Order: sequence, then C-alpha cells, then structure tokens
Amino acid sequence: MDPRVREHAEIIVDHSVQVEPGDNVVVRAPHAAEDLVVAVMEKLGEVGANPSLTLSSSRAQRAFMKASDPEDFELPEHQMAAAEKADVAISIRASRNTHESGDVDPQKNMAYSKVMKPLQDEMMDKRWVGTQYPAPGNAQDAEMSMEAYENFVWDAINKDWDEQREFQANLVDILEDGSEVHIVSGDTTDLTMSIEEMEPVNDYAENNLPGGEVFTAPVPDSVEGEVLFDMPLMAQGREVQDVYLRFEGGEVVEHSAEKNEKVLTAVLNTDEGAKRIGELGIGMNRQIDRFTYNMLFDEKMGDTIHLALGRAYEMNVPEDRERNESAVHMDMIVDMSEDSFIEVDGEVVQRDGTFRFEDGFEE
Amino acid sequence: MDPRVREHAEIIVDHSVQVEPGDNVVVRAPHAAEDLVVAVMEKLGEVGANPSLTLSSSRAQRAFMKASDPEDFELPEHQMAAAEKADVAISIRASRNTHESGDVDPQKNMAYSKVMKPLQDEMMDKRWVGTQYPAPGNAQDAEMSMEAYENFVWDAINKDWDEQREFQANLVDILEDGSEVHIVSGDTTDLTMSIEEMEPVNDYAENNLPGGEVFTAPVPDSVEGEVLFDMPLMAQGREVQDVYLRFEGGEVVEHSAEKNEKVLTAVLNTDEGAKRIGELGIGMNRQIDRFTYNMLFDEKMGDTIHLALGRAYEMNVPEDRERNESAVHMDMIVDMSEDSFIEVDGEVVQRDGTFRFEDGFEE
Repeated sequence: MDPRVREHAEIIVDHSVQVEPGDNVVVRAPHAAEDLVVAVMEKLGEVGANPSLTLSSSRAQRAFMKASDPEDFELPEHQMAAAEKADVAISIRASRNTHESGDVDPQKNMAYSKVMKPLQDEMMDKRWVGTQYPAPGNAQDAEMSMEAYENFVWDAINKDWDEQREFQANLVDILEDGSEVHIVSGDTTDLTMSIEEMEPVNDYAENNLPGGEVFTAPVPDSVEGEVLFDMPLMAQGREVQDVYLRFEGGEVVEHSAEKNEKVLTAVLNTDEGAKRIGELGIGMNRQIDRFTYNMLFDEKMGDTIHLALGRAYEMNVPEDRERNESAVHMDMIVDMSEDSFIEVDGEVVQRDGTFRFEDGFEE
Repeated sequence: MDPRVREHAEIIVDHSVQVEPGDNVVVRAPHAAEDLVVAVMEKLGEVGANPSLTLSSSRAQRAFMKASDPEDFELPEHQMAAAEKADVAISIRASRNTHESGDVDPQKNMAYSKVMKPLQDEMMDKRWVGTQYPAPGNAQDAEMSMEAYENFVWDAINKDWDEQREFQANLVDILEDGSEVHIVSGDTTDLTMSIEEMEPVNDYAENNLPGGEVFTAPVPDSVEGEVLFDMPLMAQGREVQDVYLRFEGGEVVEHSAEKNEKVLTAVLNTDEGAKRIGELGIGMNRQIDRFTYNMLFDEKMGDTIHLALGRAYEMNVPEDRERNESAVHMDMIVDMSEDSFIEVDGEVVQRDGTFRFEDGFEE
C-alpha cells in the first residue's frame, strides 16, 4: 500500500474526527477507495473504536433508482437507527466513473434526497468528515494521469494541519474585525460588500479533507459591483464558463456566461435568495494549484476567492442578523493570482495571491 | 452484466427471502460481488424495499483485527440498532483471496466473534439468506478456471427451486416416517443410526443459496458402525483427508486420518458432544457435481451424504428429545455414487446415488 494512504487515514481518524476509544464509527466508501478503507480500519483498531462499513456504490444506487417508483421511497428505519447511535461519520468519495447517475431522472434523485434528508441531517450532527480518495474517474475529470492525480490529492490532504490552521488564523483575525471588503481582479472584477458582524470560519480540515479556506457571509443587500468568474463551474450536470454578474443592492441585475448561460439563468431564477451571495470564501491551500472539477478541492485552491449564490451557512451568521436563504448554494471561483487584490476597510490584505502576513507581500 | 447475475438476484429477492414492499433490507457483500449487489439493488428497487449496503471486506477486517486489542472489543451499538430494525438480511460471499485472515491470531478472532454474537443472532431472526458470487479466490480453492467456476456456481444456484423442493419432499416423507437408517459404501462404510421422531428439513434455498439437501439429526446414542469420509474437509484452517471413524453406542471409539490426524483428534476432544453425530444430511443438488472446498456447495452435492460431529440443529430435534450439544459442528462427506446404498427400515431408498422415487432406480 502507498504509505500516503496510511498518512491520509491517520489525518482522518486523529485530526478530522478525533476518534476516541469506544466511539461508534460509520465508514462510508465506494469500491474504488478500498485501500483507504483498509488503512482507516487499521487506525480504528488501534484507537479501539467500534466501526461499521457502509458501501456507497454509484452503480448500485443507479440501478436501484432506475428500478424504483418514487412513491415507494421511504426513509430506511434501520439506517436511521444506526445513525442515531453513531458518534462519528467518515465519508470517502472515489469514482471510477463520475457520470454513473447520468441516466437517472433528476426529479427522481431530488425526491429520494428529500426522503433521505433526515438521515443526512442526523449524520451532520456527529463528528463527520468528507474526504476524497484518488480514483480514475476523478483523475479523468481533472484531466490528469493517475499518478499525477494521486500526487495532487495527497499533497493537498497530507499536510501539517496545525500549521495550516495558524496560517489561516491570520486572515480570520482580519475578517473578524473587518467590515468593508473590496475585491478587484483585472478589468473584469470590482466588487464591494459588507461582512460586518459576520463570523468567519477557519476550515482546517475538520469536516472537509482537504480543508484550507476561510469563509464568511456578506450582509445580503450590501454587495455592489461586477465580477467575472474565470474558473468553470458545474451546474445541473453541465459546465458553465465565464460567468459574469453585476450586483446592485445585493442582487444580481445583469448576468451572462460564455457557455450554458441558460443554466445560469435557471439557477438565478430558483428563488429570491438565489440572486444574492451567501458565502465569500478565500482559498488558502497552496497545494491545490489547479482546477480539477471537484469543488471539495477547487474552492480551497490557493490564490482564489469564491462566492456562492444562494444559501448562507448558519455558522457564519449571528442569530440576530439576516441570513440569506435559498434552495441553491452554487460556488463560483475567481483567480486572484495576478493583477488582483483584496482590501478590508481600505487596507490591502492580499495582492496577487500573497497575503500581508506572508513574506513577499508588497503594499 | 452476465444475465445469470440478474437471475441470481431474482432468486435471492423473490424466492429465498421473499422481499415485500417497505421491507428494511440489509445487503452485506464484499468488493468482489459488485455486479450481484447492483442486480440485487435493481430488484429491491422494483419491489419497493428500503435497502442499506454493508461492505464486508476481509482485507479491512484483517487490518482492524491485527491493530486491535481484544480488551477493546465491544458490540457496535449502531450496528445492533440497525439489525433490530431490519426485516431481511442478504449476505453475499465472494473472495479474491480466501486466506486474508491467515495471519490473524485465531484466539483474537474467537474473542471478536463472541462479542459480535448478539448481532449475528439478531440477524438470524430475520428472513435471511447466505449466498455465493463467483470470485477468483473461490475459483482457485475449487481448482477451476474462472469461467468454469462461474458455470458451476450459477448452475447450482439458478434452478427451478419449486421443482427441487418437490423432488426433495419425496425423501422428507420417507425420513419423517422412518426409524432405522443404514448407510453402506464400499467396504469402508457401514453405519446404522436411529432417526425416530426427529424432524427432517427440506432445504430448498431459503437460508442457503444454493440449497439442495435434506437433513435431520440421529438419536445421539444410536450410531453404530464405521465410516470413511472420502472427501477432504477443512478444520482449524487445515485440510484433513480420509477421516475414518468407528462408533459404539453413539460415540467415536476409534478414529484416524491420512493427513492432519492430530486436527481430527483435537476436534473430537473439544467436548463430550464432539464425539457424537449431530446431523445426517443427504445432498440432492445434482448441479453440484464436484468438491470445491466450500461447504455451502459441498454439503449439497448430489450422490453424497454428510455427517456432522457435534451440535445438532434445533429445528431437527423435538423439544422433548435429547439434542446433541457441542461447540463443534464439523461436516464430513461420503461419496455415495458407486457401490453404495441407503436403507430406511430395511427398504433401499437410494442405490449408487439414484433414489427409489427416480427413474433408473434398481431395487
């Protein structure tokens, strides 16, 4: 076994979900992640936890979905009973084919997700982590060889997360005290928003592995200006390129895209909240140095920011403040590595990808 | 997918465990059985059941066991909670390597099994089936090519089980009314036993798929004579060949084996019940025409009988009769295809593998 698999397992068990002796642990993984399951089980044995293994098979799920009548969908009581007694959930993704659900009616998938939501909510109440094991389907999406993709994934994951937490804490401090954010990239992006009293979160690989971002929520009606997202995004199973948005009073008043603009229009028309921004995230994982069509990685890419149309996270918004609500949460990324800066309350915090708390920063 | 996989899935779901709409179903399978899991999930979707998928991974289990301290073993509450809410359990075996637990301390395995026993008991209270998917490790044990092994497995499983049940019912009727059984094969086996008031069971693939045997229990102290088991058997991970036993008053008074006789001696000395016979089974699945080192198949082989040293099944023994108890239940097989007969109360019931209720039987 590649020694990096055992490192990965150690970070999952010891860092992300901090398994204790006697914990009831659910490990959920597909066939393609077999080696990581073996390594995680080894770690769980060392710790003295009580594991169970759930198979997530996109082929089996597709077969079940295609054969099912949505009127028969019921929350499986036995899965729910297990979830209620679990302390920790470890969810591993790995695809041999990322299009396995491509011929399942999306309406049916939505109906199933709705029925299964209490189970998902229950699992999110545990110590949980979602991670990625390098598999051929994911390498293919990333347009990388298997070996290059393995290097990419484990470089992003097998890090000193304490060091990363401290590095990111510098930005959390700035955003906690800050109010006005100004984001400029080239001639195409010039955006302002207020983050006053919002609560920035330091993502150092607890729920997401890799982690590596700091994210907060803007005051919903405060967003003004225009932005061009120069990284592609996937929406409703299709790739949307070069999304351009112009905001007034927090709302999108003009939009366009080079490819699949109709999809973008449909997303914006989902509900009222879909026209407003629910998240501002700043990617800080420098080992993620390319776009791989996998949001778990893409949104943490170093030298990028991302904005999400739609729903804001509860953890970012104090209870007495307005939180943007929507059925949608669509992340979109701006490259900040060149000819770009982020200002907070008039002070430059990042220029061309380098933070003011790093060597090489130029005011 | 091989069309025989879907046939197999249909027999599991419709015949063996008779899944109903709304049933909570646990499907437990290893990686190597992926296609069958897909086909079973398709059937469960058609029926309208609520499935969950459990991964049984011998590699992961080995890693967990080797890393564990047996003092930490606990019954996983979350697995137990799921089992309590389940209606149906489908357990699929398939090995890429049947020796994966070869370097785990057997004592540790026993300690783990003991802790997990309430879970196993709970699952046995459901509608359950254990079946086999053809995998390379099993083909290798059987000393067969993959294609030949696939043919063997699916010929044994994908049968008209109603027809098989009726065929076997002929023998059940004889054994229900019978008292003295006399088994003779060549010069080496000449055994008598009483089955009076015992309850023969017709195994037509409910709990075991393939099924295909009729089995009962002898009156413990009634077994007299000698028997040579001409098929090998596996005990304590070793192959024991040409086991010879001589019985007086139901107990083994003389024993030998050509290979690993010490293992046989150890089994016989486990406890008092280990020296007596707990089961007489008669294999009636004619598609199983060879020994494959897999008891799920071997004991149902056409033209064979098997005897088990040790524990008798509750279902064979009325409550007011003595039931042989033991920690051991070791099946051993005698080839009855040539120069052999079975008599019940002095009437020949099978000669050279052909039953009296079949064409070609010669009194």
